[in-house]
Amino acid sequence: MSFLKFFLGEKKSSASVAKDRLQIILARERSPGSTEPDFLPALQKELIEVISKYIKINADDIKVHLDRKDTLEVLEVKIEMPQEDKNKKTE
Amino acid sequence: MSFLKFFLGEKKSSASVAKDRLQIILARERSPGSTEPDFLPALQKELIEVISKYIKINADDIKVHLDRKDTLEVLEVKIEMPQEDKNKKTE
Repeated sequence: MSFLKFFLGEKKSSASVAKDRLQIILARERSPGSTEPDFLPALQKELIEVISKYIKINADDIKVHLDRKDTLEVLEVKIEMPQEDKNKKTE
Repeated sequence: MSFLKFFLGEKKSSASVAKDRLQIILARERSPGSTEPDFLPALQKELIEVISKYIKINADDIKVHLDRKDTLEVLEVKIEMPQEDKNKKTE
C-alpha cells in the first residue's frame, strides 16, 4: 500500500473540514550493531523550525507522537493550519 | 493502522540486511480554497540538509518520490545509510 492511499484512507474520517494539514512521519530503523545516537527528538525540533519558515504555525497546532519497537522508531508530527478568512470558501 | 505497524509491515520485505534506514513522509492536504504555495520540493531540500547535520548521507543514498491526488500531496524520502565496518556485527 502506498502512502498516498494510506493518507487518502485517513482523510475520510476528517473530511469536509476546510483546513490545511501537514503530516510528517520520520521512521528510523537502526541495525542491531548501530552506534548512531538517538537524534529523532532534536531532528523533530529542527524540522518544525524549517517548516515554520514556509507556513505560519502555532505551537498549539502541532501534535507529536513517538512510537518505538525493537530497532524501529516512528515519529509522527501533525500540524493543522487554521484557514484565514480571506481564503475561506463555503462551497 | 498506526505508522509503526505500517513500517513494521514494510520492514519484512527487506529484513536481515544490516543497514540504518531513515524514511521521511511529508503529507500535505490543502483545503480547496487554500492559496498557500507549493513548498514541498523546497521543504524537502531543506529537510535533507537538516538531516545531514545528524548523519552522514550521500546523495546516492536518497530516494525521493512525490505522489499527488486532488488536494493531497505525499512526499516520500528514503535514506539508506551504509554501515561502517567498525559498527558491524555478524550476530
